[in-house]
Amino acid sequence: MPSILTASQIDDELQTLTGWKFKRDDQGRDIIFCDFTFNNFCEAFGFISRIGLIAEQINHHPEIFNIYNRVKITMTTHDAGNKVSDLDIHLARRISQLSNT
Amino acid sequence: MPSILTASQIDDELQTLTGWKFKRDDQGRDIIFCDFTFNNFCEAFGFISRIGLIAEQINHHPEIFNIYNRVKITMTTHDAGNKVSDLDIHLARRISQLSNT
Repeated sequence: MPSILTASQIDDELQTLTGWKFKRDDQGRDIIFCDFTFNNFCEAFGFISRIGLIAEQINHHPEIFNIYNRVKITMTTHDAGNKVSDLDIHLARRISQLSNT
Repeated sequence: MPSILTASQIDDELQTLTGWKFKRDDQGRDIIFCDFTFNNFCEAFGFISRIGLIAEQINHHPEIFNIYNRVKITMTTHDAGNKVSDLDIHLARRISQLSNT
């Protein structure tokens, strides 16, 4: 089972996750999110495709929003009552690694 | 160049595009949009992948929002001043065909 993180733990993790932010959204969910910008749709779509494969592999699926060369990723752990868990942080790290390769 | 459609023309087209709706969004853009629900992430992701390939082929890119088994597609024609054009309708038809196969 994923472990819910405290706000302090989340802040600590985000210190080393460039671009990711933490907030409570307008649906009352605790989320982390990050905006990525690529050179074109082709690169953005490749990024989304790689996220999809990882998400399915670890059975944890982020929200993905794409408009042309921009991708916004939002995560929360539904099974943990829409709180941020270690699983969200793990996936955020993998996604950030992808965006650099 | 894409042709901007009148509200009446859009309504006529949407008569034969099940699930698609037309509105002016909170950014002042005229959009058409549709929500699709699949059995799981795998099916939703396959749908998104096929849209991506078509979008790149015809050089017209919809907004894509995905959360697990749900996909929301939003379209407007940026090059036509964020109005709905014949290109949006064309892509909507192709997307709807995909969702049935």
